[in-house]
Amino acid sequence: MPRRLAVIDLGSNSFRLVVFTWVPPDEPRWWWKRTDEIYESVRIGEGQEDSGELRPEPMERALETIELFAHFCRATGVRETRALATSAIREASNRASFLRRAKRRSGLDIRVLSREEEAHYGYLAAINSTTLTDGVTLDLGGGSMQLVQVADRLERDARSWRLGAVIMTERFLPDERVKRKQIKALKSYVRDELEAAPWLDGAGREDRRLAGIGGTVRNLAAAAQLAAGLPSYGVQGFALTGEALDELIEQLASLPASERGKVPGIKPERGDLILAGALVIQTVMEVGGFDALESSEAGLREGVFFEALLDDHDPPLFGDVRHAAVMNLAAQYHADFTHSKHVARLALEIWDALADQGIHGGWPEERELLWSAAMLHDIGTAVDYDDHHKHSRYLVLNAGLPGFTPREIALIGQMVRYHRKGNPSLGEFEPLAQEGDEGMLARCAAVLRVAEQLERPRDQTVQGTEIAVLDGMVELRLHADEDVTVSRWAAARQAELFERAFGRELSVVE
Amino acid sequence: MPRRLAVIDLGSNSFRLVVFTWVPPDEPRWWWKRTDEIYESVRIGEGQEDSGELRPEPMERALETIELFAHFCRATGVRETRALATSAIREASNRASFLRRAKRRSGLDIRVLSREEEAHYGYLAAINSTTLTDGVTLDLGGGSMQLVQVADRLERDARSWRLGAVIMTERFLPDERVKRKQIKALKSYVRDELEAAPWLDGAGREDRRLAGIGGTVRNLAAAAQLAAGLPSYGVQGFALTGEALDELIEQLASLPASERGKVPGIKPERGDLILAGALVIQTVMEVGGFDALESSEAGLREGVFFEALLDDHDPPLFGDVRHAAVMNLAAQYHADFTHSKHVARLALEIWDALADQGIHGGWPEERELLWSAAMLHDIGTAVDYDDHHKHSRYLVLNAGLPGFTPREIALIGQMVRYHRKGNPSLGEFEPLAQEGDEGMLARCAAVLRVAEQLERPRDQTVQGTEIAVLDGMVELRLHADEDVTVSRWAAARQAELFERAFGRELSVVE
Repeated sequence: MPRRLAVIDLGSNSFRLVVFTWVPPDEPRWWWKRTDEIYESVRIGEGQEDSGELRPEPMERALETIELFAHFCRATGVRETRALATSAIREASNRASFLRRAKRRSGLDIRVLSREEEAHYGYLAAINSTTLTDGVTLDLGGGSMQLVQVADRLERDARSWRLGAVIMTERFLPDERVKRKQIKALKSYVRDELEAAPWLDGAGREDRRLAGIGGTVRNLAAAAQLAAGLPSYGVQGFALTGEALDELIEQLASLPASERGKVPGIKPERGDLILAGALVIQTVMEVGGFDALESSEAGLREGVFFEALLDDHDPPLFGDVRHAAVMNLAAQYHADFTHSKHVARLALEIWDALADQGIHGGWPEERELLWSAAMLHDIGTAVDYDDHHKHSRYLVLNAGLPGFTPREIALIGQMVRYHRKGNPSLGEFEPLAQEGDEGMLARCAAVLRVAEQLERPRDQTVQGTEIAVLDGMVELRLHADEDVTVSRWAAARQAELFERAFGRELSVVE
Repeated sequence: MPRRLAVIDLGSNSFRLVVFTWVPPDEPRWWWKRTDEIYESVRIGEGQEDSGELRPEPMERALETIELFAHFCRATGVRETRALATSAIREASNRASFLRRAKRRSGLDIRVLSREEEAHYGYLAAINSTTLTDGVTLDLGGGSMQLVQVADRLERDARSWRLGAVIMTERFLPDERVKRKQIKALKSYVRDELEAAPWLDGAGREDRRLAGIGGTVRNLAAAAQLAAGLPSYGVQGFALTGEALDELIEQLASLPASERGKVPGIKPERGDLILAGALVIQTVMEVGGFDALESSEAGLREGVFFEALLDDHDPPLFGDVRHAAVMNLAAQYHADFTHSKHVARLALEIWDALADQGIHGGWPEERELLWSAAMLHDIGTAVDYDDHHKHSRYLVLNAGLPGFTPREIALIGQMVRYHRKGNPSLGEFEPLAQEGDEGMLARCAAVLRVAEQLERPRDQTVQGTEIAVLDGMVELRLHADEDVTVSRWAAARQAELFERAFGRELSVVE
């Protein structure tokens, strides 16, 4: 029986209830996913900056939403609940009275996170959804911004500032039109504040990376992705470059505040806040000397959830984010693990042997993508058996693989798409591709399809393979104790595809 | 624990193994789906026409494929297996020796269906996947064609002829190019043969419908769908009109046999057989006076499976094919039935009350589509919570809803797509729409969204509703024992959408 946890995140701009459902990682087929969510743009921090007090109207909106959340948890039988408040509520002078009223109306005990705790959960969210090992994680909310210094995936120092998008908008960009002077003032203020974190200065440390979470980051990434004409299945892993951000800021600053929510990728309800948020991020990137911000769709709530999911790890981090992401999807969509793992084993064995023979370059990234595709090739059967190769791609693209970039996800998607039939091509994903990707796809699809055909009877009869290169022809010898006529016959039909990928004839022998 | 059954269909043109998995209909959350399939274009009937004997080469291909199927069943642990042979094997003079060899190599006991049994299973497949009540079902295979006379969904008479696509091709259209004379001869032969079923003659019986199964039907339907530029998510429920078939035949007849498999929609391996099959179907439609052939993706193997699924029904038919299709999808993708059913109840209650007030026409089809969309609106959460409204549409379109037409499926798809946000429009499904569909979509999406918001806390607090029309404004009164502030507030935010759909303001009161 899967466990369920509702994380209630009472942020300065929005309130969010997210239900996580999971089978713990100590079970052989563990998985996790978000199974429910309610999002309300409450803006509890609205108008707070002056007095430090939560104002009556935002407070009433907040209480109604908290009541909805509590109803929802009772109705859906979610018993484990963590309600957390961040910056706006933490800093409010009337916080005690608000918490009392919330408790009375909803029965919920709200835990107010300290600045350090807020930073910590943002860090957990970012590290568990990217491959960042050294650098900085950024969490920009409505009320505050947290930066965490990361070395070898571990938290070194954490800082929090009242530099959130709501606060900064009200303080520096309150008008419909923005002036250069106001932008300058905002950035100079941020720059001064950032001196509290001397480790941010990145002079001469080009190996460091920056990963960001929060609605502002997601919206900016989505806008940059669309502006670049890239196919989009979410912004997980998308790298927002400094140049793309500069251009977006130019565009946003030229528009009146009420028009900024119409820029494709920016949510209407965030339109008036986006510019201030973008400027804060721009300043962080400038001070830190970062070329790009890697965006993650995870948020504070995932950080809280990961603490529960990985409660036997200290700190609660996945050992390998990409591996965990692939295994999570495979288990969620009921992949036949015995079959998928055997196909993956055969595919890697063939790929490795071809690399040993100098037939391709043996690039580690290609090997990892091939393994991922092999593990996920059949998940589409959860949709429908017909066209399940296409459904597998749909699930890979839409269910997401944290830790991989959009380009890598598209490549895995095309590999699973072509694991049964068709002539592999990048198709609509061309704009995401790098040089050589067409060749990589051809190689991986060919190897995957041969492996799949060897394992077509699904009985693991073909225990292993051996490759010999004779007169420019690749001979694939099958190891088995039983008769493998069927597998040999099925795999040999992929010879044409193999030849197109590797420029060599394939013969399959026993 | 779901049950599994492998149906092995040894047809004259292709061999197919299909694994069905199901929870029986006497359980509250029953469902069924195909979970595995192996298809091989074996052509066991190749060259058989002359001597009646299965030839050595096709026979060897057949035995290897049967061996693969047996391997597969053992490896995947499917214990219940039904292996069935049809026309080519049934009529073969060396059938006994073939069956013995198959048994020796695979261990499988193959049951040879009589002509009547073959017709019966085709009938079960067609009636359980369409809404045909009176008319004829057609099953065109490689070796034979079966027609069943249907009255009030029951089988009245069943006939079988050696008019399959392989046989007819070899007999009448053996060359690369076809002559008018050959087409004439084929059709005149079919017409004579059809006299054995005097009930086929449809003079003056325009209420009768024709539903067809088999690879030839699916390929022709796919080709007609593509030729008409319609969006396609399979051919289930697609009506192939007489005119569209005539045009396709013109096109196919003008091409050499080796080029016919390149016509979009026609599978390459069926290219040389498609014309003969199309001509047989055309003749049946002419003799029967049918304007269209409703195509189904079900086949003989589904017929066999339905007998197992519905073993407490005699004959094994769903009471209501459309209802069963919706409930099947809802259960497959773990819909929260309590929530979905309550949303469906509230939506229909509002829709009915608006009809009573004369605010819309109260069309029964619209009501059924609204119910279907309400039951399915959340199934996309099985893919990912983010954008689950889009994933719900993807599943509706791709997992299929037998009994509905492509147009109806598209409408249900758009209703679920717009159950959370966005401005309802037909979008890419425009070409499938009829007049008035835009309005239907607007009404159903608005009602569904109001119902969903009333049930947002998922606690069924809003037990019912009442509609009053005052000064051209619609007042929606909520019935509840508890406080419904949250539901009222959430539903009221849909007023704009409601007004666009019904031209009336909406107010939500307690």
